[in-house]
Amino acid sequence: MQVGFIGLGRMGAGMAANLLLAGHEVTVYNRSPAKAQALVAKGAHAGEQVADACRGAAVVTMLADDLALESVVRGEKGLIRALGRGGLHVCMATISVALSERLAALHAEAGQRFVAAPVFGRPDAAAAGKLFILAAGAPEAVEACRPLFASLGQRTFTVGDRPPMANLIKLSGNFLLAAVIEALGEAMALVGKAGLDRHQYLEILTSTLFGAPVYNTYGGLIAGGRYQPAGFAAPLGLKDMRLALAAAEDLRVPMPLASLLRDRFLALIAQGGENLDWSAIGQLAARDAGLTDLPG
Amino acid sequence: MQVGFIGLGRMGAGMAANLLLAGHEVTVYNRSPAKAQALVAKGAHAGEQVADACRGAAVVTMLADDLALESVVRGEKGLIRALGRGGLHVCMATISVALSERLAALHAEAGQRFVAAPVFGRPDAAAAGKLFILAAGAPEAVEACRPLFASLGQRTFTVGDRPPMANLIKLSGNFLLAAVIEALGEAMALVGKAGLDRHQYLEILTSTLFGAPVYNTYGGLIAGGRYQPAGFAAPLGLKDMRLALAAAEDLRVPMPLASLLRDRFLALIAQGGENLDWSAIGQLAARDAGLTDLPG
Amino acid sequence: MQVGFIGLGRMGAGMAANLLLAGHEVTVYNRSPAKAQALVAKGAHAGEQVADACRGAAVVTMLADDLALESVVRGEKGLIRALGRGGLHVCMATISVALSERLAALHAEAGQRFVAAPVFGRPDAAAAGKLFILAAGAPEAVEACRPLFASLGQRTFTVGDRPPMANLIKLSGNFLLAAVIEALGEAMALVGKAGLDRHQYLEILTSTLFGAPVYNTYGGLIAGGRYQPAGFAAPLGLKDMRLALAAAEDLRVPMPLASLLRDRFLALIAQGGENLDWSAIGQLAARDAGLTDLPG
Amino acid sequence: MQVGFIGLGRMGAGMAANLLLAGHEVTVYNRSPAKAQALVAKGAHAGEQVADACRGAAVVTMLADDLALESVVRGEKGLIRALGRGGLHVCMATISVALSERLAALHAEAGQRFVAAPVFGRPDAAAAGKLFILAAGAPEAVEACRPLFASLGQRTFTVGDRPPMANLIKLSGNFLLAAVIEALGEAMALVGKAGLDRHQYLEILTSTLFGAPVYNTYGGLIAGGRYQPAGFAAPLGLKDMRLALAAAEDLRVPMPLASLLRDRFLALIAQGGENLDWSAIGQLAARDAGLTDLPG
Repeated sequence: MQVGFIGLGRMGAGMAANLLLAGHEVTVYNRSPAKAQALVAKGAHAGEQVADACRGAAVVTMLADDLALESVVRGEKGLIRALGRGGLHVCMATISVALSERLAALHAEAGQRFVAAPVFGRPDAAAAGKLFILAAGAPEAVEACRPLFASLGQRTFTVGDRPPMANLIKLSGNFLLAAVIEALGEAMALVGKAGLDRHQYLEILTSTLFGAPVYNTYGGLIAGGRYQPAGFAAPLGLKDMRLALAAAEDLRVPMPLASLLRDRFLALIAQGGENLDWSAIGQLAARDAGLTDLPG
Repeated sequence: MQVGFIGLGRMGAGMAANLLLAGHEVTVYNRSPAKAQALVAKGAHAGEQVADACRGAAVVTMLADDLALESVVRGEKGLIRALGRGGLHVCMATISVALSERLAALHAEAGQRFVAAPVFGRPDAAAAGKLFILAAGAPEAVEACRPLFASLGQRTFTVGDRPPMANLIKLSGNFLLAAVIEALGEAMALVGKAGLDRHQYLEILTSTLFGAPVYNTYGGLIAGGRYQPAGFAAPLGLKDMRLALAAAEDLRVPMPLASLLRDRFLALIAQGGENLDWSAIGQLAARDAGLTDLPG
Repeated sequence: MQVGFIGLGRMGAGMAANLLLAGHEVTVYNRSPAKAQALVAKGAHAGEQVADACRGAAVVTMLADDLALESVVRGEKGLIRALGRGGLHVCMATISVALSERLAALHAEAGQRFVAAPVFGRPDAAAAGKLFILAAGAPEAVEACRPLFASLGQRTFTVGDRPPMANLIKLSGNFLLAAVIEALGEAMALVGKAGLDRHQYLEILTSTLFGAPVYNTYGGLIAGGRYQPAGFAAPLGLKDMRLALAAAEDLRVPMPLASLLRDRFLALIAQGGENLDWSAIGQLAARDAGLTDLPG
Repeated sequence: MQVGFIGLGRMGAGMAANLLLAGHEVTVYNRSPAKAQALVAKGAHAGEQVADACRGAAVVTMLADDLALESVVRGEKGLIRALGRGGLHVCMATISVALSERLAALHAEAGQRFVAAPVFGRPDAAAAGKLFILAAGAPEAVEACRPLFASLGQRTFTVGDRPPMANLIKLSGNFLLAAVIEALGEAMALVGKAGLDRHQYLEILTSTLFGAPVYNTYGGLIAGGRYQPAGFAAPLGLKDMRLALAAAEDLRVPMPLASLLRDRFLALIAQGGENLDWSAIGQLAARDAGLTDLPG
């Protein structure tokens, strides 16, 4: 397939590389062009402006946040103007439910197709083509994305024809992950202050009721106090809690645990954790408990 | 081994049966003697008083709560008085850290051995001999329990020589489970109010990041609104959050998520959920969100 | 003084009337012109567009929210375009800290003066000229507003030269009020469920430690379950908690009580309380406690 | 009146002195007898054991907590045994609702009268005879206490014939005070981090909506960071939140704000605040926000 790819950050670079590897013809575009070079070396065309990435069968966007996406999509030189009637925009980033809704409307107005397809998976999964993809949009449009999704992920879940639903599920997933981190952080503060070895404790948990990889992964980070380098940085965690809570507010759904998590991310960042992995909120309970020999 | 077994509730009955099945000679005692009959039919001796269960190599207690255990242990006709010097008490129930500490001291004073060995697993796991056992006490005493544990569980974790540590881990485990229930409850309220099918949503979660049985089990109960019959009733959930928070208070560890969970159990019970499974706190977020078509 | 007044809602109508009463020459403008008629009868000029209210020594805005204010301020026919160099905009509504910052910048760019002057006080205080005014802006600009403030309020507090600071104080004040409501709601649920008369209880509180009018006012509403008609409707409470939390997030300040309050307003509105007074969050604790004989 | 007085701590010493001043004949008893000497110098009789304080028309207890009171009341040499039929016990300390209930039952069983009469007021108010007294018990028994209450307080509120109700109101009052502290702490963290002067901010609050002395007192402590010496120490705050929550749990009333406050006290004490005034929880929001230049 001939496709454009906009946004070559830690996730996007690996994804674009996988598209090339699968034989797609990819025109990449990134605000800071340096990031495009490694991909050009792998066979990508270097787009000089947004419009260059909008001439294929689809354009994929993988930008950092709502603001970055809006600046690419709107305006004279924006994606919507550049994309012809019938064009297809596949947004794979974690954006707000509200923006997804606005984009769906704007593309519809312009006679274009919009698929929201956010992913579960960290940069290593992106690089390995092992993402889980949550896709929502008009069935025909989602169908058209199949060859792309097959190159990017291990499995695609279709969640209906309203794009914002995919974004909502993605945000709820990150909420559930952060909830695991917080719960583990509190439990480890408790048993740790009682004098138990946190690694032995984690071993018991993962050998019994909590055999999922998330407990293993995050429990290991918290037990070891290893919050650097950040696989997913604290400010991104804060952003996702904010987006989840904003969606919940629009739907009138109180989520007290999500509120607690948001406060945790704020506290972490306020106290100098800007560059730590988001799992570092898992050390706040220990800190509140006066445990000062915290690693990390 | 010749053992006594006190407390033939939903968990204890299955456990005592497994001891018999494994060839141990078991004297059972229960406050209401009716529950002993099924076990006598399987070969158990019926004890008429606590002392009758204290004459073997060990006595196992599996009582509902601190109060029930204290009433069995103390007093003229209590377990401590009946158990000779060198006697071995194996407490497998979920009791408070503070009571476990007091019992350890009382038994030591009486020249007796005390092992705390609480378990992970519901009644079906107890009946199947598939419990996970967390054992703490003097190494020699824990060692002496091996034949019993082998008959009762699939795996035993030894967590040091201070009995209360096993109780603390057990309570922290139930806290972690309740945290999963709350998180799922909030997430399902969110996506459910947006119009997504909760079963499809759960399928996505368990196929991607949340592959642990706990998500499957509790997610299914919440998605389906099936809170009866209770596998583990709401008041037991409240009790365990209270015990976890009491231990945390003694250790000076603030646990905001545990506080939230305690409030949830209180709300559930206050609103008529006394007989529901503890996973029914997972419907409170939906109720707060004004979703009135709640099943269950 | 010759002034314009934009926004004739429950607060604005009373304020504009007080300006007239004090002898100011007032041109009023409201999106739905019907509301202007009562004031024209009292001597006001009826503006037909925003620009008509921008020709005096100052223009006061008292609009419902950020959105309404932005739509009046920006654009070809907006306030900024209409106001000449040196013009003075006095914004007395409860708006976000972020919008106040943007407006300060936009007006500065246009060579204009901007004063944020939000108020404490309900519509009855607005009508009686008894508001408390929190004013921030360039000293000379605040000085120029003195004759207006003297006609509108019982006292003006000058809080520095950065307009957003006045908005922040206003929002924090509403947070403190909502905290009183929540605390009273929980306390009354507790003593009420124990069987105490809530009015007698309130009488004890206000006669001893809690002699402030806010306890009297909100305590009376909660004890009596009188949430209609709304003096300040629940959605406005939600809005202000959201704005307070947004300001706190920008400043990296976790406010767990504010988070709790936001969740309370969401729950209230989700359960049909859209038209109730914001003090109706004070009944949620009782409802969670299973007290079904709630009035209101 | 001829009375006994047991418990000569910071509150009790001042109260006993006021009874003497008013002409009552007082026999004092304290576990550590040194504290009795100053009162003996003022005309008190020194009791050598609990029984010595039980021979008058009433015995007042003002002990630190449930444990201290139980140790005085029960046993061979305890208050109940010493007090004859018809004797009157007036408990003025802040004890648990549950203990108040048990005492009411025990005294009734022994043919004695029990009045719970906890107070609002700090040691200075106790010394000045300016306490507010909340009295509950059989009308005749409360009536018999009038001469004592008149010497101790500025006003007495009779709250029915069930003693535990007075204790519940007292605990709810301390909850409401702690809620004010928390709310002020969060608000000051917010405006303080924005750069506003906290004293000026407090001045605005107390001059407008929050004119009650509690805002003035606690706001001043927080704005100035003056948490020593402790008027009411942090561990007492923790104790009262625990007792309020225990009463709420027995009544099945979820109180999320009380849970938050309990966690705050735990965090304060865990981090070295054991000897600070309870208002020091008002600095935790600022600390979470990364403000490191905290005084106190």
